Amino acid sequence: MTPQNDRFLRALRREPVDCTPVWLMRQAGRYLPEYRATRAKAGSFMGLATNPELACEVTLQPLARFDLDAAILFSDILTIPDAMGLGLSFAEGEGPRFAHPVRNAADVAKLFVPDMDKELRYVMDAVTLIRHELHGRVPLIGFSGSPWTLACYMVEGGGSDNFSRIKAMLFSEPALLHKLLGVVTDAVIAYLSAQRSAGAQALQVFDTWGGVLAPHHYREFSLPYLTRIARELPRGEGIERTPLIVFGKGNAPYLEELAASGTEGVGVDWTVALGEARRRTGGRVALQGNLDPATLYGTPDAIRAETRRALDDFAAANGGSRAGHIFNLGHGLSPDMDHERVKVLVDAVHEFSRM
Amino acid sequence: MTPQNDRFLRALRREPVDCTPVWLMRQAGRYLPEYRATRAKAGSFMGLATNPELACEVTLQPLARFDLDAAILFSDILTIPDAMGLGLSFAEGEGPRFAHPVRNAADVAKLFVPDMDKELRYVMDAVTLIRHELHGRVPLIGFSGSPWTLACYMVEGGGSDNFSRIKAMLFSEPALLHKLLGVVTDAVIAYLSAQRSAGAQALQVFDTWGGVLAPHHYREFSLPYLTRIARELPRGEGIERTPLIVFGKGNAPYLEELAASGTEGVGVDWTVALGEARRRTGGRVALQGNLDPATLYGTPDAIRAETRRALDDFAAANGGSRAGHIFNLGHGLSPDMDHERVKVLVDAVHEFSRM
Repeated sequence: MTPQNDRFLRALRREPVDCTPVWLMRQAGRYLPEYRATRAKAGSFMGLATNPELACEVTLQPLARFDLDAAILFSDILTIPDAMGLGLSFAEGEGPRFAHPVRNAADVAKLFVPDMDKELRYVMDAVTLIRHELHGRVPLIGFSGSPWTLACYMVEGGGSDNFSRIKAMLFSEPALLHKLLGVVTDAVIAYLSAQRSAGAQALQVFDTWGGVLAPHHYREFSLPYLTRIARELPRGEGIERTPLIVFGKGNAPYLEELAASGTEGVGVDWTVALGEARRRTGGRVALQGNLDPATLYGTPDAIRAETRRALDDFAAANGGSRAGHIFNLGHGLSPDMDHERVKVLVDAVHEFSRM
Repeated sequence: MTPQNDRFLRALRREPVDCTPVWLMRQAGRYLPEYRATRAKAGSFMGLATNPELACEVTLQPLARFDLDAAILFSDILTIPDAMGLGLSFAEGEGPRFAHPVRNAADVAKLFVPDMDKELRYVMDAVTLIRHELHGRVPLIGFSGSPWTLACYMVEGGGSDNFSRIKAMLFSEPALLHKLLGVVTDAVIAYLSAQRSAGAQALQVFDTWGGVLAPHHYREFSLPYLTRIARELPRGEGIERTPLIVFGKGNAPYLEELAASGTEGVGVDWTVALGEARRRTGGRVALQGNLDPATLYGTPDAIRAETRRALDDFAAANGGSRAGHIFNLGHGLSPDMDHERVKVLVDAVHEFSRM
């Protein structure tokens, strides 16, 4: 069923739009007081993420405030390794931790593709509930972490500054790392496919840490697995096809390769100009991005000027057309950002792109 | 006076070398037990950095262990803002802090170019002492933070995850930020010039945080100030010229512009292949880099293979010649790295590049 507002899906098909669609990574989050209230009610982050009613509630919150063109499932990229038995927890203000990180061949041998109807049922229930509660207003995006990015957390056991453990594995036991990435890729494909079956109308893969790799390692340990997802993930045909977006921090050097990977959309961070990204991808994919999130620390005038600049940079490289552009930040919103400025941004995207 | 080992200076002039010179960012540092002993003796990091005898001692330590082709002054990039009265301190394991960060026009108005013979005398004394104690064995590199990178610390008041304060200034008070960057650039030029007079035989600018900027902001707030330094820093002519290296994390998108800035060398991180960097800079500058520092978490075999790969990637793009390449990491050594593996790396550079 086509949503009432299908700008986002049209943009992913590179069809003409009345104005450029916009959604924001981490649009449901701590910068919203109503999110903080629901989060307090849930008791913990995982309490919130694993409760479909509460996950639905926070997913819809930003749509009540802002004229956004898509909703994104409220969840976490680490649900897959958690379902593999790694024991995810979030210590307050500390980021994610795994009780059982993956450090050797025995740990890798224990990994499996979780049952989407059991260990990850709560995610699918949330997707179905959110889709229902959206009443077709805007499309719902499901998502997953990328294989490389999930592997980073699984091997490091949490966040990392220098990725010393996974890089030790990459340099010393590359075959073991490939085995790990293979299982995770199988799980990501099953996970995204199940989200699609549960009601997700678009799917995004977050390759948050691809940019920490040297080019020859990115091409060996991240890109092939992103490509496998883009090629193997079943998602229908033609107008019914559920589009995939591959977002990557630091993916600018690889835009040509990502455009040839089989994905419908590529999300880019703010370190590449959108016009250049458009030229280098040659219109083969839709582009999503890419305002520096820190723009939201600027004045409303600055936010409007930067928004207009990004829109026009894309259009100038796209033969004057705005088709094929989904506006977003180059990375997620931060807790200390002001929701009134977020509104300025969202409204500016529609205002300027209607001109 | 030409040092006995002048490979590093020859490479910066893109002259033939018997083998590729190598030094490593943060080669004097916590991964060395003898450094930790001297550091303990000094009482604090700043106690070490401000004591010319101890700074000399730690500068020379890695040269006693490894066959390095250059020494680099042991100091910190934040000496300039400290000398401007910002009150630098290092809390154990917390990184740098400024007691008086720069937040508004009144703060910027108070900034001044420090007197190199007074507030920064200890740096010049260290340079002269180290140069003397090197007995002409290898050249001595002096250094400074880049204007943008220093401004980040000055405005944030220390390290930052999202650079919210300086980006707020960038978006809301760009003229004020330019004023700040102008004074800092004057100070950097005076500082590098004084280090040269004190005995430094090459100079490096660290633009550690240039890569957090969107391209149009990098071209407005970092690149022009790097270019001013490259053009205005007095450094002699011909064979007597003191070469400048501009290193930048995330500077890969700007290699053509950096090669045209007037610098003799460009240092790159590990997210760009050296061969590509060579092609894009067209042999106009020497290139320094760029092994992923995390390679040192790998086995000796992996370290040797990656070293050979980087050397050969450069040479293949350089008409088969190794001239114009200074081997280094793409970023600094970390405290948890193993000095025995550092030795494997240094020796591998010379071994493979002699072939």
